[in-house]
Amino acid sequence: MRLLELATIAGLELPEGTGELEITGVASLQEARSGDVTFFGNPRYLAQLRSCKASAVLVPMEFTEEIAPVVLRVANPSAVFASIVAAFAPPEVVPTPGIHSSAVVASTATLGEGVSVGPLAVIGEKAVIGTGSVIGAGCLIGNEVQLGEGCYLHPGAIIRERCILGNRVILQPGAVIGSCGFGYEFKEGRHIKIPQTGIVEIGDDVEIGANTTIDRARFGRTVIGEGSKIDNLVQIAHNVQIGSHTIICSQVGIAGSTRVGSYVTLAGQVGLAGHLEIGDKAVIGAQSGLSKNVPAESMVIGAPAKPMKEWKQNNFYISQLGKLYERVKELERKLGGE
Amino acid sequence: MRLLELATIAGLELPEGTGELEITGVASLQEARSGDVTFFGNPRYLAQLRSCKASAVLVPMEFTEEIAPVVLRVANPSAVFASIVAAFAPPEVVPTPGIHSSAVVASTATLGEGVSVGPLAVIGEKAVIGTGSVIGAGCLIGNEVQLGEGCYLHPGAIIRERCILGNRVILQPGAVIGSCGFGYEFKEGRHIKIPQTGIVEIGDDVEIGANTTIDRARFGRTVIGEGSKIDNLVQIAHNVQIGSHTIICSQVGIAGSTRVGSYVTLAGQVGLAGHLEIGDKAVIGAQSGLSKNVPAESMVIGAPAKPMKEWKQNNFYISQLGKLYERVKELERKLGGE
Amino acid sequence: MRLLELATIAGLELPEGTGELEITGVASLQEARSGDVTFFGNPRYLAQLRSCKASAVLVPMEFTEEIAPVVLRVANPSAVFASIVAAFAPPEVVPTPGIHSSAVVASTATLGEGVSVGPLAVIGEKAVIGTGSVIGAGCLIGNEVQLGEGCYLHPGAIIRERCILGNRVILQPGAVIGSCGFGYEFKEGRHIKIPQTGIVEIGDDVEIGANTTIDRARFGRTVIGEGSKIDNLVQIAHNVQIGSHTIICSQVGIAGSTRVGSYVTLAGQVGLAGHLEIGDKAVIGAQSGLSKNVPAESMVIGAPAKPMKEWKQNNFYISQLGKLYERVKELERKLGGE
Repeated sequence: MRLLELATIAGLELPEGTGELEITGVASLQEARSGDVTFFGNPRYLAQLRSCKASAVLVPMEFTEEIAPVVLRVANPSAVFASIVAAFAPPEVVPTPGIHSSAVVASTATLGEGVSVGPLAVIGEKAVIGTGSVIGAGCLIGNEVQLGEGCYLHPGAIIRERCILGNRVILQPGAVIGSCGFGYEFKEGRHIKIPQTGIVEIGDDVEIGANTTIDRARFGRTVIGEGSKIDNLVQIAHNVQIGSHTIICSQVGIAGSTRVGSYVTLAGQVGLAGHLEIGDKAVIGAQSGLSKNVPAESMVIGAPAKPMKEWKQNNFYISQLGKLYERVKELERKLGGE
Repeated sequence: MRLLELATIAGLELPEGTGELEITGVASLQEARSGDVTFFGNPRYLAQLRSCKASAVLVPMEFTEEIAPVVLRVANPSAVFASIVAAFAPPEVVPTPGIHSSAVVASTATLGEGVSVGPLAVIGEKAVIGTGSVIGAGCLIGNEVQLGEGCYLHPGAIIRERCILGNRVILQPGAVIGSCGFGYEFKEGRHIKIPQTGIVEIGDDVEIGANTTIDRARFGRTVIGEGSKIDNLVQIAHNVQIGSHTIICSQVGIAGSTRVGSYVTLAGQVGLAGHLEIGDKAVIGAQSGLSKNVPAESMVIGAPAKPMKEWKQNNFYISQLGKLYERVKELERKLGGE
Repeated sequence: MRLLELATIAGLELPEGTGELEITGVASLQEARSGDVTFFGNPRYLAQLRSCKASAVLVPMEFTEEIAPVVLRVANPSAVFASIVAAFAPPEVVPTPGIHSSAVVASTATLGEGVSVGPLAVIGEKAVIGTGSVIGAGCLIGNEVQLGEGCYLHPGAIIRERCILGNRVILQPGAVIGSCGFGYEFKEGRHIKIPQTGIVEIGDDVEIGANTTIDRARFGRTVIGEGSKIDNLVQIAHNVQIGSHTIICSQVGIAGSTRVGSYVTLAGQVGLAGHLEIGDKAVIGAQSGLSKNVPAESMVIGAPAKPMKEWKQNNFYISQLGKLYERVKELERKLGGE
């Protein structure tokens, strides 16, 4: 595609004489090669920009440095870049509507209009699949599961019996919804399984990552609120409740009955003990371990978790302990004679 | 169901005039709505009880406060509640006995009486499935695998060749048994795969969580002892040995050849280095990282792990470091003139 | 097998009169029973050797102690043991060449010579599978995926559309290649999904563990370099680049766009923040949390990560804090009168 065409798509103003430049792809600053267009939005990457091999680069309006690639000044490089990425994106895989002949769909299941069921998928008794939903190859959907409209289950997602998904829910491959909660009663030296008779209920516009596991409730519901996004390999235990528009990064683990508010951010590998309350808009730093409630809008990190500032201060103090021991020794030397 | 009927089922004594109250479900204190019955067993949740919207609540005998829901006094609220949960539980999904026509069962496999094989499951050559076992939809069972009686494999569980499961073993969806151990020999700048020719052997009454992975031994056996329970997303490396009745919470990782005793508890996200010994009845706190053996019946936490009391004390000391630095500064100021 | 036969296979010199000893298996020092051969290579396990129940044990040349099992002196006990393990290994499961009748292979897919496709596997439109590759039971391979020669996909591995694997790549069960990266734009109170239009590209001789997840790039490629080995339950986010011959242990998480060099070792449960650079041959200790770049050949551990020596020193200082507080108190007492 000539740069001129790209300029039309993305609403760019071109430096004179650059319209015929051939652009063949998009890439990050570091990966870009001749033919690529890239973008520079963060001053942190200035060194990468200077050695960048792209043919053209989107930069903020105020950027003035001379660099090798053609410079394209825009108000928001990242946003403009997104539209260029879209222009170069390969066509999406469009699922064939209808039921693949190899899928096993129970005769008592109800499928809405335009539903696509991929090869070797299984849909259980009395399951309901909403209009336009896509069930990828090899997905396993249990009895009486309900899916809203426009859901997209990538290949190999698994939903156990009776769980309920809202509209436009996305499951990445290998996600497991509705596995048994981890609950036992200890009796005469043995752990006896406590039946897990509840379900998982997932709100509209939720996305669940690859191989993430969400346990059904002991009774009642494990809840993922509308618009929340959950990354890969996350564990959500029975009876947990996640609010709306909350972000849960990869490998987070949340123990039973904990309630996470709305607009919360849980960074990677965080662990939350059971029966906690995490307030709305709280931000929990990576690898934190929480065993106490967290008020709304707080920002904590560490194990045990502390306010971010205090955590950094403590880490600094720890790094200086060698000197502190020396200072105390010196004081003792001075006072020793007394 | 009227409260009177519930009282009969659960052996309750009702306050006068409450027998006709309509009960429609069960819920936790916090989630309960009108029509629900709930229970109060832990003084910690008194505030929740006071604002509870349930129609009736089970409380301990000694509870005397006036609250909105009908108060049902019992010796053990949690146990009575369990029987009420059971009364309200939806009927269990009963797997159809027999082999679903879409399943692929090797002609050399041996299936016991009453075995159920779900849609699109695969059972390999010479596999043996014990009486009454359930193989869920899409399960993949390798050649020469042996399952005892009454096992329950939820949809999408995977067992590689030759692994051996005892009786009444439960696998949650996506559990992987018998993947290759992670072993390489470094030769001339490359990691050469060491063949992993052993198996995984799982005792009676073990439960394995969703998307948990248990590697086969380099040679010999990776062992999970009788009655042990393993949560979701746990990693168990080759040649690990887990004793009996041990509890392993979500996202724990155990490196190669480590031996965990019986009646041990590993809390969430714990990491154990390879070749360790964890003694019987040890309790390892959440997110701990262990690189040393742990004696029986000890209770440790942290990374490096310490006795629980010491860990708390250290955390307190760290939280007070700012003050300690001030105190040392003050001492230096006082002594400065000397 | 008589010890004499084993000696021939492994090139052993036998003590007089031991050739007729019957050897029935291989096991570790600790697990070995009568009939087993085992090996002793690490002085750390001397106690285990002394109580070992094996019939024969491989020891280093310089070993002189008297022990119960027959002693077999060799230059490299571990290497000789490997050849004996191979001799006792059960025959490998040999996949049947050809396409199982229950597999669903798109008519536009191209399969090389000698490819084996297991029961109920799915191969998408225009996928290309190189000569001699094995696609296990229930594997799900998306449209336009490319596999090189001699790949081995164990049952239940999943590859989404357009991803590219080199030659001899091994996927363990449940591995997910090409799930969507975790990227959203926050607009008017909602997280809007950013299309993830790139792919995952995996080099020759890479092995990927069970239930590990590797996200496709936002655009361009997530890259796993030649010869790198990745354990179970690892998370690799979009646009991450891993060099060659790098070892990534179980439950590691790597956030978006981070670049890990070649010959790096990431121990278990490590977390790397996004947009980092980890230099070649760096070693990152277990459970470390990194938010800063790491130079080549460094060895760091902890969260925040420090050089190993410093980390140990700090841990020692922390363990002595109780005494330090006492010493400061004593100084204050002494100075109190002034």
